[in-house]
Amino acid sequence: MKRDTQDRKPKVRRMLDKVGVTNLKTLVQTMWGGRLYKFVPKIQLTIDLPESRKGAHLSRLVEAISEAIEEESRETHGSLEGLGKNILVKLGRKHQFKSGEVVIETDLVVFRKTPVSGRDSAESHEIKVKVRRDGAEYTKALSVRVYGNTVCPHSIEISGRPHIQRAIGMLELETSLGNSINLEDMIDVVEGAFSSRVYTLLKSEDEASVVRSMYANPKFVEDVCRGIIHGARKFKRCRVNAKVISEESIHRHDVIAEASASY
Amino acid sequence: MKRDTQDRKPKVRRMLDKVGVTNLKTLVQTMWGGRLYKFVPKIQLTIDLPESRKGAHLSRLVEAISEAIEEESRETHGSLEGLGKNILVKLGRKHQFKSGEVVIETDLVVFRKTPVSGRDSAESHEIKVKVRRDGAEYTKALSVRVYGNTVCPHSIEISGRPHIQRAIGMLELETSLGNSINLEDMIDVVEGAFSSRVYTLLKSEDEASVVRSMYANPKFVEDVCRGIIHGARKFKRCRVNAKVISEESIHRHDVIAEASASY
Amino acid sequence: MKRDTQDRKPKVRRMLDKVGVTNLKTLVQTMWGGRLYKFVPKIQLTIDLPESRKGAHLSRLVEAISEAIEEESRETHGSLEGLGKNILVKLGRKHQFKSGEVVIETDLVVFRKTPVSGRDSAESHEIKVKVRRDGAEYTKALSVRVYGNTVCPHSIEISGRPHIQRAIGMLELETSLGNSINLEDMIDVVEGAFSSRVYTLLKSEDEASVVRSMYANPKFVEDVCRGIIHGARKFKRCRVNAKVISEESIHRHDVIAEASASY
Amino acid sequence: MKRDTQDRKPKVRRMLDKVGVTNLKTLVQTMWGGRLYKFVPKIQLTIDLPESRKGAHLSRLVEAISEAIEEESRETHGSLEGLGKNILVKLGRKHQFKSGEVVIETDLVVFRKTPVSGRDSAESHEIKVKVRRDGAEYTKALSVRVYGNTVCPHSIEISGRPHIQRAIGMLELETSLGNSINLEDMIDVVEGAFSSRVYTLLKSEDEASVVRSMYANPKFVEDVCRGIIHGARKFKRCRVNAKVISEESIHRHDVIAEASASY
Repeated sequence: MKRDTQDRKPKVRRMLDKVGVTNLKTLVQTMWGGRLYKFVPKIQLTIDLPESRKGAHLSRLVEAISEAIEEESRETHGSLEGLGKNILVKLGRKHQFKSGEVVIETDLVVFRKTPVSGRDSAESHEIKVKVRRDGAEYTKALSVRVYGNTVCPHSIEISGRPHIQRAIGMLELETSLGNSINLEDMIDVVEGAFSSRVYTLLKSEDEASVVRSMYANPKFVEDVCRGIIHGARKFKRCRVNAKVISEESIHRHDVIAEASASY
Repeated sequence: MKRDTQDRKPKVRRMLDKVGVTNLKTLVQTMWGGRLYKFVPKIQLTIDLPESRKGAHLSRLVEAISEAIEEESRETHGSLEGLGKNILVKLGRKHQFKSGEVVIETDLVVFRKTPVSGRDSAESHEIKVKVRRDGAEYTKALSVRVYGNTVCPHSIEISGRPHIQRAIGMLELETSLGNSINLEDMIDVVEGAFSSRVYTLLKSEDEASVVRSMYANPKFVEDVCRGIIHGARKFKRCRVNAKVISEESIHRHDVIAEASASY
Repeated sequence: MKRDTQDRKPKVRRMLDKVGVTNLKTLVQTMWGGRLYKFVPKIQLTIDLPESRKGAHLSRLVEAISEAIEEESRETHGSLEGLGKNILVKLGRKHQFKSGEVVIETDLVVFRKTPVSGRDSAESHEIKVKVRRDGAEYTKALSVRVYGNTVCPHSIEISGRPHIQRAIGMLELETSLGNSINLEDMIDVVEGAFSSRVYTLLKSEDEASVVRSMYANPKFVEDVCRGIIHGARKFKRCRVNAKVISEESIHRHDVIAEASASY
Repeated sequence: MKRDTQDRKPKVRRMLDKVGVTNLKTLVQTMWGGRLYKFVPKIQLTIDLPESRKGAHLSRLVEAISEAIEEESRETHGSLEGLGKNILVKLGRKHQFKSGEVVIETDLVVFRKTPVSGRDSAESHEIKVKVRRDGAEYTKALSVRVYGNTVCPHSIEISGRPHIQRAIGMLELETSLGNSINLEDMIDVVEGAFSSRVYTLLKSEDEASVVRSMYANPKFVEDVCRGIIHGARKFKRCRVNAKVISEESIHRHDVIAEASASY
């Protein structure tokens, strides 16, 4: 039988760190408490490739994604990192690799009560779940991207009043796959580090409360970044990366702060 | 009782065509065949504002969205345009306006059989549903954005072989809200206009079939655009807008074609 | 001699409104006051195509762009709309069309003095220049996209203090090509409509001044939009379109206002 | 004299890796061969911040950028990495830091002769120049993002004909600031790794030549990535990172390959 093109020797002998599919959008279904949840994440799945192989069999990567999604849809306690691991397990039976990595990006909606009127408000956050396998070892990186604001303390000192703006806080945790971490808890840490939490629905009394909270907690982008790193100390055995971008209302450019820690 | 700031007279008297919320991402649930579907679309909701009012009560717009979503989640035959209408109906009870418009953007996943191996392949398409109310009249605009390819006929003539590239076809239908149109049918019209349909999963025998189909149907971006307009004649009482962008493999720039028709 | 593929009859007979190249980035040089200015705009050039022609000769569109750029680089008083017209003139000698349109997008940097310290601050704005030819008639559309801020008057009423955020104001003028309009004047109209102008460089004394200006001019997104429309009345014989997006610091979503007028 | 807010002790004591300005677009002028070049790059400038300082004096970062740009505009042999170093030197006199980093992103236009007709064609590439200072040591990272294509060898084997698509190749070199490397040479290495180079202007005879070159050099995304890594061995004392994304014409998703090497 003729060998596939992918299985031949390449002209240039170089090991590749990652080969695979990216920007693949597909339907994921998970059962949770007897209900079917459906969403359309963006997926990247890559494996390493030895210098002796011309190419990867990419259709097997797509099959591993499809089969894991199909199987997870029958689970009653699905999770994105469970799906990620399952994709790598399925792929391991179809294709040889030493290290493989799957990244799943989607929106996570969390319901909150508004601060005064107590109404339900649906809050959407961008999340990213990465599962990596090196040999037999599985690790993960969980990321959340959360909206909030900064209220400039320096402006208060020099003019008696702050400039205020939207800010975006990002928290990434790198840890072993088995280390149980809730994405909602990560979102909570980031929200808690801002001058105030923000809400999709705000009645006048809620708005007044949010604004009072802002003025009571003036914060530089540096303060928010430190607050995230500090708040993340509750996540044990993690490498923590924090980044905050403040979309300045007095400038055309943004300001940025980054920090990291190991707990 | 003190009047809200929004209800005052503005300094500059000008009618505004649209005032509202945009880039709002929230959780939408629809029941279909006894199953709960969940997704996180991006929503814009706007109304016109007379020259005599300083501002719109924007929290009422968010409430109309929340309440309509809550109500639709109990429907057994929800649709995005049904949700759009419901948002405008709910808003009409909370806020005065002459014209209002809601735009919902999300991904729609359609399952297809691969051409030879007959496997299920999940295909994701970006869609946009706009519902507009002018007085008592409701209209809608439905849009789909679909991936395919172009295979250059001119290149075949001058070199015996075509250059090939990914292309993106867009079809928009403007019609009355009551005119029943299936988004899947719109996607089908666009896919049928390309040199070949494309698939997320392709085994070798499928890939060979897709490639044969490409070479058997060389098409300029102009041909694809005309094909979409022609295929859309099945949608009656519609204004049709088509746009195709071909991401040229021999250039750094893209090529584009646009056309419209009324059926 | 054999006819080019493009010159044949297409299978589907449909007139196309626009066929051409898009997302083309190239180097433009203009001489101004004895100095050579260089920048890399994004260009789209399209023409209509009759139902009897299969395709447009797209390389002639690229040639028209190149030749006009080359010729304009020797001018001592180049302008983007002059370049746009020249592209259409050059194209008219190479390719038949009834209507043609060129869109040039780039950044325009304007120097301002900071409000107190009086330093030079370079302020960058996104601009778009569209030149259209229908038969022998030339029209244009000029657009500017300018950063500023909104300071919520309603929040002041209910909590004594405003929430503040970055806002983006857009002004588009549609008029005859000969109607002389300065992009810098358009930017000035948009900046003047915000609660305060913003600057790239701000020393402490400037920042205090900007913040005082913000608190002295609380404005809804509606107010900013009306202010742009009102300020644009100085541009005669124009169709005016204004749009403002406020990136709310108390919400995850944005708010939007749109209006138009004819002067 | 009162201490600035930034100079106080923060509540949470954490060292920050990066604090600064980002997404700052400004006008840069460089003299080259007696001619003034102008362009509007996007700049990020950050420094580390000790745990004992509440904030950085961000206006000094903007001043360092402005002053270095002003000074470089009078140089007769300006370069982006020279500007980057100058920004860090200027900043060192205004603000204390251990490590500082400036990233400049812009478009670089290179002129090429088309392969057969020999015409000039302006080719635009996205580039990124990062200069970093740690103590007294300066390093840099140079990146180019270049368009090309992949021509599938597996498809040729199974169907006799390839599918073809646009691909994007990225090459990054990390090295000491003094190691002289030409961005044009980096672009050349990436272009040389594709199935064929691409051009903005192509007359029919050029197009035929490009297409022949494509079919003569079928390449997987893996082959292109290895080709970049291999071609980059001419850059001595560098860490090399390569990434290629192929925008598949038979799929909705992209395929990706990544590799790295040290020379």
